[in-house]
Amino acid sequence: MKIYAKELKQHLNEEIEFSGFVDSIRDLQWVQFIILRDSTGKVQVTIEKSEEKNKELVDLVSSLPVESTVKVTGKLLDSPKVKLNGMELIPTNIEITSKSNNELPFNYKKIDGVNLDTRLDYRFIDLRSDANILLFQVQSLLVKYIREYLYQNDFTEIHTPKFIATASESGAEVFEVKYFDNKAYLAQSPQFYKQMAMASGFSKIFEVAPCFRAENSNTSRHATEFTSFDVEFSYIDSYEDVMNLEAEMLTYALTKVKEEYGTKIKETFGEEIIVPTLPFPVMKLSDVYQELETRYNYKVAPEEKTDLTTEAERLVYKLAKEKFNHEFMFVVDYPADKRAFYHMRDENGTLQGYDLIWRGVEITSGAQREHRYEQICANAESKGLKEDVKFYLEFFKYGCPPHGGFAIGVDRLTMLLLNINSIKETEFLFRGPSRLTP
Amino acid sequence: MKIYAKELKQHLNEEIEFSGFVDSIRDLQWVQFIILRDSTGKVQVTIEKSEEKNKELVDLVSSLPVESTVKVTGKLLDSPKVKLNGMELIPTNIEITSKSNNELPFNYKKIDGVNLDTRLDYRFIDLRSDANILLFQVQSLLVKYIREYLYQNDFTEIHTPKFIATASESGAEVFEVKYFDNKAYLAQSPQFYKQMAMASGFSKIFEVAPCFRAENSNTSRHATEFTSFDVEFSYIDSYEDVMNLEAEMLTYALTKVKEEYGTKIKETFGEEIIVPTLPFPVMKLSDVYQELETRYNYKVAPEEKTDLTTEAERLVYKLAKEKFNHEFMFVVDYPADKRAFYHMRDENGTLQGYDLIWRGVEITSGAQREHRYEQICANAESKGLKEDVKFYLEFFKYGCPPHGGFAIGVDRLTMLLLNINSIKETEFLFRGPSRLTP
Repeated sequence: MKIYAKELKQHLNEEIEFSGFVDSIRDLQWVQFIILRDSTGKVQVTIEKSEEKNKELVDLVSSLPVESTVKVTGKLLDSPKVKLNGMELIPTNIEITSKSNNELPFNYKKIDGVNLDTRLDYRFIDLRSDANILLFQVQSLLVKYIREYLYQNDFTEIHTPKFIATASESGAEVFEVKYFDNKAYLAQSPQFYKQMAMASGFSKIFEVAPCFRAENSNTSRHATEFTSFDVEFSYIDSYEDVMNLEAEMLTYALTKVKEEYGTKIKETFGEEIIVPTLPFPVMKLSDVYQELETRYNYKVAPEEKTDLTTEAERLVYKLAKEKFNHEFMFVVDYPADKRAFYHMRDENGTLQGYDLIWRGVEITSGAQREHRYEQICANAESKGLKEDVKFYLEFFKYGCPPHGGFAIGVDRLTMLLLNINSIKETEFLFRGPSRLTP
Repeated sequence: MKIYAKELKQHLNEEIEFSGFVDSIRDLQWVQFIILRDSTGKVQVTIEKSEEKNKELVDLVSSLPVESTVKVTGKLLDSPKVKLNGMELIPTNIEITSKSNNELPFNYKKIDGVNLDTRLDYRFIDLRSDANILLFQVQSLLVKYIREYLYQNDFTEIHTPKFIATASESGAEVFEVKYFDNKAYLAQSPQFYKQMAMASGFSKIFEVAPCFRAENSNTSRHATEFTSFDVEFSYIDSYEDVMNLEAEMLTYALTKVKEEYGTKIKETFGEEIIVPTLPFPVMKLSDVYQELETRYNYKVAPEEKTDLTTEAERLVYKLAKEKFNHEFMFVVDYPADKRAFYHMRDENGTLQGYDLIWRGVEITSGAQREHRYEQICANAESKGLKEDVKFYLEFFKYGCPPHGGFAIGVDRLTMLLLNINSIKETEFLFRGPSRLTP
């Protein structure tokens, strides 16, 4: 088993093998220093040139390209004078396990001024930076703890199909697939199928899976493919049950991420993980606009007040902090007519759902769903949907408990947590209208 | 918060609300019995017809279709005479939260003789059975514990893109997507990208995600879309490190699943969860064929001996049990020329990898990968691959540690664990060449 850099402290004064990338080499008159790295940290290898037995090692290191991978055998010394963790590895053997090309396409350690597209073209190099390794460790952790919260609350993870027979859900663009002699489409979200699970009596489910959106837009928040964390559960009394679960879930995950990686995140990204308090503040859409006008003199035309504008989302962050000393805010009481037909609405046409704004960005929409067969059929019809959603309407014909849920984009969540500029940097490999490689 | 059936014991002699599906109604001369169910169990509701105050309830229940959902308010009594868990709910109110159609498309409680296609056409009904609810709870648990093992071993979960620019990986059929003015393809596996993570220095990763295969075959083991659990890790010495990790991982997960659901699985599916012992037995392919001939008089033509036939896989189960008293067997030393170009081979052309056979079915293939740039290029060329894999070959140009990994089909694993006939029943919604609905 490989010894990882973070475990080295336990092996001081032992003969060990250490494998990793050659992070850098300093070849001085009397000594060679190699810094090796793995995904958990770095260690210095020191070779005294004057020692006769080191001749072969010195020659090998002289022509060793950085970013090659090696396996070093040697003694790990406790050396307080060494800046890097106060230890050094004195090698007796170095095996080159792969050789790097001398010319890296760009210096991934100094990305200021490097075009983002160049970095994405060579994403396999770009990801090597300490910040990117950490970013995806944090993303993994975030998803782990969201799942952990849901497992503790008896949720079942399901895997719904991404191939669907008809193109329509909410009207947004859908990708078409050549499916043998037919056509299929790629699911934009697991919405219909997570509701199917409710009709089947699953009670509480979640799914973490790719969603596909054929939107030809190039913004820092959009991608043609992204990872969605979807949650749906039954036997709710109102969408407030959904809000409460989501707030608890996020608080749980952020607490855990802070405990485990808070210090490292602060060091690397300069971001403090702020664990929210419960309950999260809630405001009605109309009240939000009123306060934004009073406080910040932000005015919008009445016809725009059916949803939050991008600028309003940004200001909601300010409002949440000033009014509630909070990072999050639920906004409720949207008019339902602009929302998908499957959301529940009350007799006044008010959406029985919410948007959650975190740090100026909408990270999730949640709602109680319409579970009554006659009503969901009427809703679909009022949107001009019929044949395309027929299979879905069937789900509600044979009994279905009241239910609701929400979805969170994992990449977007990571972006906000670490204060990264673009979703292009928080997806392992970004996919957009003009990017399908590598 | 809803009280679940499995929690009812804690609420004896309390006024409670219980929500669920109407599982059945027995309307007798003096009494009505309703059995309610949720995803965790069932409870009896008892209504005495003679009591004046029950008149409305009796009327309501008389016309209540089974499979409707209700919320019942009442007192939960400790009633040892009641067969179902020794308790009954005496209602003061019943609210119908959704009404089922009286005519179910088929009786999901008696599926003997029901065509599988009918069941799949109405999968949202089919899934309501106790066995299916349990099946997906077990699947969720299995995946949970496999992940838990990997988290404990410092693996990072990643999400690789399903859109890819070129069609080729291992030669099998790939789905084509209309991608704006271009074409894209759907990844058959995350193979290339999990290896990219290794080149990027991620060390240890896994992914749970859909894979897409455009194979026009209708067998009990194939689907056009399935959930794959993919693992890849660096700094290995040989494929034996990969085998060992996989064996430990499966043993961990099966131990946990047995602890939590062993009894319930035995009751519902008649299957004993057998926790394997470590290490798993390993045999060379040639030795396997020799023993199959000696023991079972199973003979195949020499040209078929480059891989296990379906019948040989079946017999390997028998062999594993008789020779090693084990449910699993690793088979190694396959000739590499029939395998994908990215697997490592030794100087004799022997695959540095394995297949794992469980209960007569190959559940996984694993291997050390070729990580050396010159060698992987040569391997690709020998398979006639060039342009299509060019982006992938680039990953190895700038250093990449030795690594290996494997993939397990989650649906297939569930099928074998619970002794289910077909993968069509262990996918939440099966997708095949002629099935895209519901």
